[in-house]
Amino acid sequence: MVTRENLDSVLKHRVGLKGPMATPIGKGHRSLNLTLRKELQLYANVRPCFSLPGYKTRYDDVNLITIRENTEGEYSGLEHEVIPGVVESLKVITRNASTRVAEYAFKYARDNGRKKVSAIHKANIMKMADGLFIKCCREVHEKHPDIEYEELIVDNACMQLVKNPAQFDVLVMPNLYGDIISDLCAGLIGGLGLTPSGNIGANGLALMEAVHGTAPDIAGQDKANPTALLLSGVMMLRHLNLNEHADRIQSAVLGTIAEGKYLTGDLGGKARTSEFTKAIIDAM
Amino acid sequence: MVTRENLDSVLKHRVGLKGPMATPIGKGHRSLNLTLRKELQLYANVRPCFSLPGYKTRYDDVNLITIRENTEGEYSGLEHEVIPGVVESLKVITRNASTRVAEYAFKYARDNGRKKVSAIHKANIMKMADGLFIKCCREVHEKHPDIEYEELIVDNACMQLVKNPAQFDVLVMPNLYGDIISDLCAGLIGGLGLTPSGNIGANGLALMEAVHGTAPDIAGQDKANPTALLLSGVMMLRHLNLNEHADRIQSAVLGTIAEGKYLTGDLGGKARTSEFTKAIIDAM
Ligand SMILES: CC(C)[C@H](C(=O)O)[C@@H](O)C(=O)O
Ligand SMILES: CC(C)[C@H](C(=O)O)[C@@H](O)C(=O)O
Repeated sequence: MVTRENLDSVLKHRVGLKGPMATPIGKGHRSLNLTLRKELQLYANVRPCFSLPGYKTRYDDVNLITIRENTEGEYSGLEHEVIPGVVESLKVITRNASTRVAEYAFKYARDNGRKKVSAIHKANIMKMADGLFIKCCREVHEKHPDIEYEELIVDNACMQLVKNPAQFDVLVMPNLYGDIISDLCAGLIGGLGLTPSGNIGANGLALMEAVHGTAPDIAGQDKANPTALLLSGVMMLRHLNLNEHADRIQSAVLGTIAEGKYLTGDLGGKARTSEFTKAIIDAM
Repeated sequence: MVTRENLDSVLKHRVGLKGPMATPIGKGHRSLNLTLRKELQLYANVRPCFSLPGYKTRYDDVNLITIRENTEGEYSGLEHEVIPGVVESLKVITRNASTRVAEYAFKYARDNGRKKVSAIHKANIMKMADGLFIKCCREVHEKHPDIEYEELIVDNACMQLVKNPAQFDVLVMPNLYGDIISDLCAGLIGGLGLTPSGNIGANGLALMEAVHGTAPDIAGQDKANPTALLLSGVMMLRHLNLNEHADRIQSAVLGTIAEGKYLTGDLGGKARTSEFTKAIIDAM
């Protein structure tokens, strides 16, 4: 449950770090992850994704950031049954939210020495909704002419991502495409157990989270991979400008994975969570 | 342009084979591809995707079929501006179309000796719309208990596809997910230049098509890769129960690619379209 107290606490401290929470399928209460993102107006979801030295997948050259609009789109929650057997679901795209997330993406690119922003859309089909989204991206790009800008249709973007992810740098997109593409990208480098995530709001508000499942099957067994949560913590420290602390933890985590001696089961190792984290602490 | 005559001709002959047609982005006329699919009620879009022997990508074990609902969903064309800067786009999911495509998927699995159907959805967010889709899939599965059935959330499906595509067999899903996932899958084996596609309607109606772009930059230069169109032709022959002819063409095409002597530029070769097709004809 997300209580008023939880919300107030994040609002007061302006920053938070959370683990995964399960979302029921096809029925039941609204996703708690979503409730947090909407209630706190955490408008940009930022997911850095990079190949981890030493952890081998089919790809070794991934280094990109997906920035996802986090408050509207297909996640409006507006659905109704028109007549029995006919359901409508509303996707909402606004100029405000699109411009806000586009501005975040270009600012992120600039602050982090990134060269290119790719806007992902399906404006050949959703000409008005996704058309508005890319129009806002173009307008924001005009204010950042030194940053390269391109537009890709979402199906083509996914094809390009699996063929040659190295061509991408910063990607910005509506909510659902961001959900899909950030998972796809996580898959390229090994899965959601490895990728951090941050939800960014106005005036420095930020809630970092591990976005993998709750894995109830291994609960309490000292088996889960804490990398995504640790790297989300690193994102939180950077957000607070504690870059030295962030660097120290990040290199200990990546170093331990690269070394390969204490990997959890999902990474093909046999270490317990506690052994993996001890190795990380020792490395610091 | 798609004329009444075009439509009538496909309706009369019950089968057709088409090349790509461009769709304007953000404005302009409605996609002609879509017009054909909707007008002819071509309700299932079938895209086989398999690793081509001899053509190396990061994956060598892809062998799956995406079956996409082809008439509704995010492709309803229903969009409006609520107030300036606020656009709504309607996704429509119906019991009829969902059941029809689920039935096609299970029948396809049965007819083609496939073992498993995976339904892809986002019913944790679109609880009513995608909830209805998976409900229909479950009901159809009950009539085919010998075929394995599973459900995957679309973001997870994409992650699984890039991590381990060999786990998949037949995938069935609403329109937009099908658009995205079929391109993703094409990317795994080399791109849309290699993957055939068929649009299936009632009473044996079928329109096969190459779904890659129109590539205006190389028009008339004898450079394009005709594989997707040729394999779509093969699908057409199979649809007409001309399996021997289909087999002959398919093995000539795959054999020529496997041999690797006459590949077009997109496959890393230097052959002209005419040299590639001559090699295929010689192989027959
Ligand atoms: C759990 C689910 C509601 C959530 C989403 O769809 O956004 C998750 O997939 C994510 O990406 O954070
Ligand atoms: C061209 C476009 C309208 C079409 C679609 O979105 O369906 C294409 O991407 C496809 O997959 O056939």
